[in-house]
Amino acid sequence: MNGADSLLSALEHNGVTTCFANPGTSEMHFVAALDGATRIRGVLGLFEGAVTGAADGYARMADEPAATLLHLGPGLANGLSNLHNARRAHSPVVNVIGDHASYHRALDAPLTSDVEGTARPFSHWVRTSSGERALSADVADAVTVARRGEIASLILPADAAWNELPDPGTPPTALPAPLPQVDALAAEAAARRLHEAGPRGAILLGGRTPRAEALEAAARIAAATGAEVLTDTFAPRVSRGAGRHAARKVPYAVGPAQELFARFDTLVLVGARPPVAFFAYPTKRSRLTQPDTRLLELCGETTRADLPLQAVWEALPESARTAAEAPAATRLSLPEMPSGSITPEKLGAFLGRAIPENAVVADESITTGWAFDAATRGARPHEWFNPTGGSIGWALPVATGAALACPERKVIALESDGSGMYMPQTLWTQAREGVDVVSLVFANRRYQILRNEMANVGVEDVGERAGQLLDLDRPVVDWVSVSRGFGVPAWRAETMEELSAAFDRALAAEGPALIEVVL
Amino acid sequence: MNGADSLLSALEHNGVTTCFANPGTSEMHFVAALDGATRIRGVLGLFEGAVTGAADGYARMADEPAATLLHLGPGLANGLSNLHNARRAHSPVVNVIGDHASYHRALDAPLTSDVEGTARPFSHWVRTSSGERALSADVADAVTVARRGEIASLILPADAAWNELPDPGTPPTALPAPLPQVDALAAEAAARRLHEAGPRGAILLGGRTPRAEALEAAARIAAATGAEVLTDTFAPRVSRGAGRHAARKVPYAVGPAQELFARFDTLVLVGARPPVAFFAYPTKRSRLTQPDTRLLELCGETTRADLPLQAVWEALPESARTAAEAPAATRLSLPEMPSGSITPEKLGAFLGRAIPENAVVADESITTGWAFDAATRGARPHEWFNPTGGSIGWALPVATGAALACPERKVIALESDGSGMYMPQTLWTQAREGVDVVSLVFANRRYQILRNEMANVGVEDVGERAGQLLDLDRPVVDWVSVSRGFGVPAWRAETMEELSAAFDRALAAEGPALIEVVL
Repeated sequence: MNGADSLLSALEHNGVTTCFANPGTSEMHFVAALDGATRIRGVLGLFEGAVTGAADGYARMADEPAATLLHLGPGLANGLSNLHNARRAHSPVVNVIGDHASYHRALDAPLTSDVEGTARPFSHWVRTSSGERALSADVADAVTVARRGEIASLILPADAAWNELPDPGTPPTALPAPLPQVDALAAEAAARRLHEAGPRGAILLGGRTPRAEALEAAARIAAATGAEVLTDTFAPRVSRGAGRHAARKVPYAVGPAQELFARFDTLVLVGARPPVAFFAYPTKRSRLTQPDTRLLELCGETTRADLPLQAVWEALPESARTAAEAPAATRLSLPEMPSGSITPEKLGAFLGRAIPENAVVADESITTGWAFDAATRGARPHEWFNPTGGSIGWALPVATGAALACPERKVIALESDGSGMYMPQTLWTQAREGVDVVSLVFANRRYQILRNEMANVGVEDVGERAGQLLDLDRPVVDWVSVSRGFGVPAWRAETMEELSAAFDRALAAEGPALIEVVL
Repeated sequence: MNGADSLLSALEHNGVTTCFANPGTSEMHFVAALDGATRIRGVLGLFEGAVTGAADGYARMADEPAATLLHLGPGLANGLSNLHNARRAHSPVVNVIGDHASYHRALDAPLTSDVEGTARPFSHWVRTSSGERALSADVADAVTVARRGEIASLILPADAAWNELPDPGTPPTALPAPLPQVDALAAEAAARRLHEAGPRGAILLGGRTPRAEALEAAARIAAATGAEVLTDTFAPRVSRGAGRHAARKVPYAVGPAQELFARFDTLVLVGARPPVAFFAYPTKRSRLTQPDTRLLELCGETTRADLPLQAVWEALPESARTAAEAPAATRLSLPEMPSGSITPEKLGAFLGRAIPENAVVADESITTGWAFDAATRGARPHEWFNPTGGSIGWALPVATGAALACPERKVIALESDGSGMYMPQTLWTQAREGVDVVSLVFANRRYQILRNEMANVGVEDVGERAGQLLDLDRPVVDWVSVSRGFGVPAWRAETMEELSAAFDRALAAEGPALIEVVL
């Protein structure tokens, strides 16, 4: 066996079953070794952002890492922006980055660059393998790191991949994902302060914590104390809809977010950080809470926040616990199907009605989607992906990875015509893999958020020369033509009726589809 | 005025006339200031790779920097791979990278990342501006750096852009591009060794040196000594065609390149580095020259290599100079237009005939184009862009930038269906700006170079699972549909006659066009 065989064998041994890849010459032995690694599915992306974004989406659903395969520094560079999002999503990812043969690096051939330096700002762990014999242990270390919700970047010199080695036997085994440390003192303090605060208390679930069980545990505490349950604007995945315990999403806009937090003098942070504005603005405070708000950190990053929240529950006074009624889960509440011209409000109602059971919704709708949270609370149960790191263009790749992790679920990508233009070639991978992703592209033909932000930063008049950098007309992108060109069936909807008909058709079919929703 | 006004005023003062941009919220003051900076044209890219690649193409033709405008760490990250190519092309580029307001960074909002650390591996110079009063000097320093053929990355905190400052008067002036230091000792050594070596001597022009004047100067030395003139495989821009002095391009493949260099025992490097293989291979040497080849470095990076070469000429013995006949420039020699089915050989002849006078050819044809060099030597005079850093997907962006730098020239992008998929949204910018770019997309529906490289690295049988990562069928990309979707007229050619007719139609029209050339 060679180093590439050993590496793939170690990935298989540690439960990695999917490798999103955009390979080059230095990765040819890895690719060839895939023929023998029959438990790993290689998925080709035509651009590296599609690869890393898919790994993020896969991880958000599977809670286990997918691998990526990237080609030297520039290939890694093309994948960094979605690694930034994955890092902020606490998604487990194992990157394998091919590099020149170790002896070739010093010659400074054209593709040579500082791969470690490129990986470091977007990785928790970076290692250049010392050689073929180290690879199986490198993989175990990388998977261990990833399972903490971190980005592991393993650099694979070409000669480490192609050199032969004796069969090393069973590869080393990675550690499982850590369970949260339940901090009894923090739990007691949270219970005491929430009990005191009553309706001036809130529990903010962020990171990977807003899963169904944790939301139920938080709702129970809320029922006993009068606190409100919030989810972070940028939580990567939130369990929502009928049968789940509804939580309010913190609004994106600074003013409404500050108004919301002003209602609370006690805020318990569950896998969340002290809330801050996404951007700074000349005349606004950057912190979303009041200066005297009491912030209590209950636990760090985890998918099992139900355990620390259980400790808070148990630390509540007996009287509060017995007096509390069990909180009611959200009832199914499907809005009427709207008709006529398309507006953001009607789109919210449409989604509230149309989201299929157990769907995954990847929401990069930006300005179009600001009313979707309220409108979809009573929808059929589903998982909702928010933006995490704020880097644009993630929804198509992330939806693709989620669909591959969960072939039994329908995936809905809520995309915008601006953000969808960053990585449109992801549609080709959707077609290749036949994933059940329906992408709605909301076409307002401008960077509407930047038009809004111009006003927010105090620019009153946007002239023609500046406006050219904010508008997407001249020409208008024909998303139907683009999508069909990549092999994904597509339709255009200019009324709610057309949207509804196209959506039903798309859902009924196997494989991907795209609907350009003209606003 | 605010910091953004001051920055743009300094760019204008220093001759920057084009800013390729993909802005976000933190750049809104920069964008607003464009309304007042009427000497700077803002050009919107829908993805940052289109922005930085266009800056590279602009610089290859203008020999002056364009500016880019990028949005925080992830926006910069999306532009890095084409900055890698620009760095290897020695293209002058001034990046302006917006970042959070200085006081907002410590809050670690979602889009926060290590911008300096991200820029550094792909920049020669990185500076975070210390504030609005420093910006005009920052710009002068950045332009000075760029004019050396380097990448300058200036990070602009949002508050530095929006803070007011007193009018600073005339901004500082950047230094001009340095002329090459003529090293008399090196010139004398080169002259002596070339004279001794006769036909076993060669002059290798790399980097920005293979311009018409330098090629003429090298040809004159070659005529007097018997040496051969070569151009580097990865020279960013080579003056070619009728009326120019022809030079052989070093082949990409290691075997043929090593055979070529084995013919020489003396090699004078003009803006070139000691030649090495693009990749390492298990059974091949990485250096292209023989161990005992004498390498002489005449000069470093410059666009005026005619000056050092003139010094070599003057150092040749009087007898050699007077005996030498003036070297003949290449005669116009247009191949017959081929007909019938499309092959790489016929495409070479087609290009040799079809390249219009003073065109720019951006060549990312990869495996399809390996015979183009010989076939186009007698074409009408033109400038030929080679890959430089080896990062894929550059031809569409670079062609766009070159066309904006030279609106009087026709630009031909030779693209492949694999590489063209990295940044296809560049076509939208071509449509928006109405640039005269004709893109030929050679569609063999596979990563043919990787199929070849599998054999080169010793993999004999590529199985089905590995082959899935090398082939681009299932589905076949419909480039005509994709291109039209982005607003660029497009046709498909399946015979040489169809190609010729479509090319004539595309050239005759104003604005961009794309032809999918099915192989």
